[in-house]
Amino acid sequence: MFRSNTCGELRLADAGSKVTLAGWVQRVRKMGGMTFVDLRDRYGITQVVFNTEHDSALNEAANRLGREFVIQVTGTVAERTSKNPHLPTGDIEIIADELNILNASEVPPFTIEDESDGGDDIRMRYRYLDIRRTPVRQNLELRHRMTMEVRRYLDSKGFLEIETPMLVGSTPEGARDFVVPSRMNPGQFYALPQSPQTLKQLLMVAGMDRYFQIVKCFRDEDLRADRQPEFTQIDCEMSFVEQDDIITLFEGMAKHLFKTIRGIELTEPFIRMPWADAMKYYGSDKPDLRFDMKFVELMDVLKGHGFSVFDNAAYIGGICAKGAASYTRKQLDALTEFVKRPQIGAKGMVYARVEADGNVKSSVDKFYTQEVLQQMKAAMGAEPGDLILILSGDDAMRTRKQLCELRLEMGRQLGLRDKDKFACLWVVDFPMFEWSDEEQRLMAMHHPFTHPKDEDIPLLDTKPEDVRADAYDMVINGVEVGGGSIRIHDSALQAKMFEILGFTPEKAQEQFGFLMNAFKFGAPPHGGLAYGLDRWVSLFAGLDSIRDCIAFPKNNSGRDVMLDAPAALDQKQLDELSLEVVLDEKK
Amino acid sequence: MFRSNTCGELRLADAGSKVTLAGWVQRVRKMGGMTFVDLRDRYGITQVVFNTEHDSALNEAANRLGREFVIQVTGTVAERTSKNPHLPTGDIEIIADELNILNASEVPPFTIEDESDGGDDIRMRYRYLDIRRTPVRQNLELRHRMTMEVRRYLDSKGFLEIETPMLVGSTPEGARDFVVPSRMNPGQFYALPQSPQTLKQLLMVAGMDRYFQIVKCFRDEDLRADRQPEFTQIDCEMSFVEQDDIITLFEGMAKHLFKTIRGIELTEPFIRMPWADAMKYYGSDKPDLRFDMKFVELMDVLKGHGFSVFDNAAYIGGICAKGAASYTRKQLDALTEFVKRPQIGAKGMVYARVEADGNVKSSVDKFYTQEVLQQMKAAMGAEPGDLILILSGDDAMRTRKQLCELRLEMGRQLGLRDKDKFACLWVVDFPMFEWSDEEQRLMAMHHPFTHPKDEDIPLLDTKPEDVRADAYDMVINGVEVGGGSIRIHDSALQAKMFEILGFTPEKAQEQFGFLMNAFKFGAPPHGGLAYGLDRWVSLFAGLDSIRDCIAFPKNNSGRDVMLDAPAALDQKQLDELSLEVVLDEKK
Repeated sequence: MFRSNTCGELRLADAGSKVTLAGWVQRVRKMGGMTFVDLRDRYGITQVVFNTEHDSALNEAANRLGREFVIQVTGTVAERTSKNPHLPTGDIEIIADELNILNASEVPPFTIEDESDGGDDIRMRYRYLDIRRTPVRQNLELRHRMTMEVRRYLDSKGFLEIETPMLVGSTPEGARDFVVPSRMNPGQFYALPQSPQTLKQLLMVAGMDRYFQIVKCFRDEDLRADRQPEFTQIDCEMSFVEQDDIITLFEGMAKHLFKTIRGIELTEPFIRMPWADAMKYYGSDKPDLRFDMKFVELMDVLKGHGFSVFDNAAYIGGICAKGAASYTRKQLDALTEFVKRPQIGAKGMVYARVEADGNVKSSVDKFYTQEVLQQMKAAMGAEPGDLILILSGDDAMRTRKQLCELRLEMGRQLGLRDKDKFACLWVVDFPMFEWSDEEQRLMAMHHPFTHPKDEDIPLLDTKPEDVRADAYDMVINGVEVGGGSIRIHDSALQAKMFEILGFTPEKAQEQFGFLMNAFKFGAPPHGGLAYGLDRWVSLFAGLDSIRDCIAFPKNNSGRDVMLDAPAALDQKQLDELSLEVVLDEKK
Repeated sequence: MFRSNTCGELRLADAGSKVTLAGWVQRVRKMGGMTFVDLRDRYGITQVVFNTEHDSALNEAANRLGREFVIQVTGTVAERTSKNPHLPTGDIEIIADELNILNASEVPPFTIEDESDGGDDIRMRYRYLDIRRTPVRQNLELRHRMTMEVRRYLDSKGFLEIETPMLVGSTPEGARDFVVPSRMNPGQFYALPQSPQTLKQLLMVAGMDRYFQIVKCFRDEDLRADRQPEFTQIDCEMSFVEQDDIITLFEGMAKHLFKTIRGIELTEPFIRMPWADAMKYYGSDKPDLRFDMKFVELMDVLKGHGFSVFDNAAYIGGICAKGAASYTRKQLDALTEFVKRPQIGAKGMVYARVEADGNVKSSVDKFYTQEVLQQMKAAMGAEPGDLILILSGDDAMRTRKQLCELRLEMGRQLGLRDKDKFACLWVVDFPMFEWSDEEQRLMAMHHPFTHPKDEDIPLLDTKPEDVRADAYDMVINGVEVGGGSIRIHDSALQAKMFEILGFTPEKAQEQFGFLMNAFKFGAPPHGGLAYGLDRWVSLFAGLDSIRDCIAFPKNNSGRDVMLDAPAALDQKQLDELSLEVVLDEKK
C-alpha cells in the first residue's frame, strides 16, 4: 500500500502520528522558507508542509512539483496554526519528511477545481481529468449510493436481480435499434435491447415472481439535449399483483431513497393524479408540483364580451402568479415573447394585475367591465398583489401545453422550483392509445403490452381512443423518473391489442411470437415499471443534464470524444462480418 | 395482490387461517371424492385439497385443471393427516373454498420437474418453462445472492460501482470484437467491450481510487463448450496498491462469499503458487488442489536404462494414485487410450503398481531392475497399494499438460473432485509474454497493460521471454475464477511494452493513444482484477456448464433459440446504416 491514510481522514486527534499519504498535487504555495502543498485524493484534501529549515533539499523538490503530479509523502501530523474551517482536515497539516514523485504530470488542459475553466468539449475529451473535479466525482459517488440502496431495498422485498441478454432480436416497432452483425450467422444481426420489457415478462411467465435489474438500454435516436444512446434503467416486474400493489411497493422504494440518500423523510402518500387531471390543471403528464399555480379554465367568464381572440378560442386558461403584480411592463413583454417563441407557439398573452384595492387592471380592459374582471379574479382565486396570466387558442390540448411552459417559467422566475425541494406524485389512468398523425393510426401510449383498465375493455371494439390503461408514471419535480403498467397476460387480449395497433397477425407473430407463445403456457397476471436511473440521479444531484452523472457520456452526435468512437473498421473486419459500407446512399 | 401468502411459507402454526394462494398447478391427483392439487410458485409447493362433499362443483372444476394452469385458491389451512417431511409446507394443506383460473396452459413440451425429460434444445427454446424447474431457478437465485454479497463486500471496502460505456471503440488486438454500426456517423462502428480494462484504468487516472462493476462483456469467438458471446465480469481496480494489497482484499471477498453463500469458513490464507511451480507440479496454470497427486520428475531415475522412449525423452514425469494398485489391466488400457486421444496427444503411458510386499511391478519391467523401480517408488513417495502413472515426451511443457489431464482424470475416477469441497489458491508470477507460433512474435500473456516485476524490467531489453509479470489468477478447484495484475502507469514503459509486442508507435497511438495520453497527466500506481461471474456461480452451484446459471443463454452457434436471434434486417434498416450484406464473400 502506498499510503497509511487517505487525504480525507486525518483529524486533530491524529496529531503526532507518522503517516504516509498519496495523491495529486492540487496546489503549491511558497511562503518564505515554507512550501505548502494541497494533496488531493478521492477522499479529500490535506495540507502538506515542506520547510527549508527542516530539510532544504526536500523543500526544493517540493517547489518543483507541478499541478496534478502524483506524489507520496511521509511525515508527521501536526496541528495547524491557521485552521481552515471549510476543510474536514482543516485542523491539521503534515510536516513532510519524505517526498516521492510517483508520476509527473503535464499541465492539464483546464483547471481541476470545482468551477473549471474547461468548456464542455475539452472536459469530455479529457473526461479522466474532469472526473477529478469534486462535483463530478460526487455525482458518481451519489450514483453508486443510489444503486446500492435500490438493490438493498428490492432485495429486502424478495426481488431477484436477473441479467437479461444484451444481444437480442430487433423489433422495428418503437424507437430505432442499434444492431450487431453476427459473424457466425452471416447476414444476420442481433439488436441491443431498448429495454428488457419482453424478457422480464418472460421471466414472469417463468415464475420468477419478483425481478429487477439495473441495466443498460440502447436507443438509436437523433439525440436531443439530455438523451444518450445508451442509458441505464432500474427495471422491475412482479407477478400476482394489481396496480395498487406496484405503486405501494415502489413508492416505498422512492421514500427509502429520499431518506437514505437525501435525508428527507416523506411521510405522506404520493398524490395519485389521473392523466386527464394532469393535462387539465397543468397541461402536462409530468406536472411540477413544487408550486401550485393550477390552470383555471376561463371560457365561461371571458367568452362573448367582444374580444374576438377569446370569443373564437377553443380554450382560455389562466394561472395566478402570487405576488407578481409588481411585474413591470418590460417583464410582461418578455413573458409574451417567451410564449410566442416557436418552441412554444402561443399567439399572445393576456395579463391582469390585482391591485392593492382589489381592482383588476388587465391588458384587455377595453373589452371587459370591472365586473367581469372581478368574476375572473374570483375564479382564479386571485388576491391583491397577484398577477393573472392568460393564454387561449383553438386547440385546447396545445394551448394547455403552452400554458404549462408559461407556468414553469413563472415558477422559475418566482424561485418556486427549488432543487432541494421535492414534489412526488403518480400520474395514473393514462390513455391506452394516442393518435399518430405521422403514421395515421393509433399508437400505444406506453407500449403494446400494457393492460387496458378492465372496465374499459368493452370500448376496445367501439371507442379505442377512450380506453384507459393500467399505466402509471412516477413524477418528481416535473421529471418523469419512472413509469410502468400492468401487462396483458392473456394471448387473446394481446393479439387483439396488436390488431388495434395495425399489426397483421403474421407481423405480430413474427415480432412477438415468442411472447404470445409463452403466454399459452400459464402466464401469471403481472406488471412492473422502469426508472430512468440517469434522470433520477440527476434529480438528486440537482443537475441540469444527465450527462454529468455518467462517467463517460457521449456527445450530441453520439460520439465518445475521449475514445474517439465510433470509427471506421478494417476491411478485414468488414469482410468477416459479410458487410460492405455503402456511403453514397441510394435513398 | 392476488394472494395472501406464497406457496412456500405456510406452516402448522398457520392452521385455521383463511388464506389465498396463487401459482402453477404442478400435479393433480384424484383420490375418491377428493382432488389434491400441488400448487407451485417460486417459494415452494403447497398442497390444496378439493372435496366433493364440501363442494362438488368446485371439485369438478379442480379435476379439469391441467398441468401449469395458473390458479388462485382461497381456503383454510389445515393439518395434514399424512405429512410430507420432504416439503417445508408438508405439515399442512389448504382446504379449498374458491378456485379461480387466472390462466390456462397448453400441455408443456417437457415436464417441469427437477429432472426434466426435455433435451437441451427444447429446454432452451422454451427457456421460460425451463426456468420454472427448481434447479434452474435456484441457480438464478444463487447468482442474485452472490452479486448482492459481492456488492455488499466491495461497498464496505470503499469501492464505487461505476458504469462504463457499452458502445466503445474497436481494438483489433486480442479477441474479435462485436461491432455496432453508427447511423449518425455513417460508415463508422462502435465496438462492444471485451472488458472495461482501459476504461477502468482511466477511472484510476481520474482518481476514483477504488472501482468495481458487475458488467456484461462481449467476445466474438468461435464458441467452444462453455463459452458465451456475452458474459459477465466482476471487474475491479484500485489505486496506490501493490500486488499483495489486491490479493489480500480479494481473498477477503472470496472468503466472504464462501461464508455467506456456501456457509464455509475458510480460515487459512490461500496458497500462493508461482506459475512456474504450477506448471512443474500440476502441468497447469489452474491446478485443482482438491487432491494432491503432484507431478514428480523422474528423469534422473528412469533415464539411461535402455528404454528408448524414456532415454530420448525431454521430460519424464509421474503421478502417484493412492490406493489404485487394484486397477485392472482393462482400466489401465482405458487410461492409456484416454491419454492417447488426439485432444491430449500422448504417445503412451507407463504404469507401475506397488504391491502389498513393497515390490514394484511395472509395464516396463524388462528395462528396469527392482532396484531402480524402488528408487522410483521412493521418489514418488509411493506406498503399497499405490499406482504410479508415468508420461514422457520430447516437449516438457506439452508432456506436463498431458500429465495434467491424466491427473485430473484420476482425480475424477478416484472421487477426489468433490463438488462440495473447495481448494482455492493464487497463481502468481506469470510470465509477461508468451511466444505465438501463429503470429511469430511475443504476445502479452495477460494483456499489454500488465506491469512487469520491477526486478525483471532490465530483462525487457535483453531476454523479454524471461520477464515475469505482477499478474495473478485466483483458482478454485481447477477453474480460473479471476485474474488480474498491477498495471503499467507510466507512459514510457507502456510505449516500450507496445514496442516489444510489435506495435509501431503509430499503431499504438491509434489504438491506445487515449490511454497513453491519459498517463501523461498524473496516473497513479494501480492494479486490479476481474472475475468471471458465470464461472464462479457455476462453481458454487456445482454445475458442469455456465449455461445453467444464465437466464437466457445462447447456443454454440451464438443463437438465442427462444428469441430466434440473430435474424436478417429489413432493407430499410440496412440503408439507414449505410450497410450492405455481401454473402458471397470475396476472400
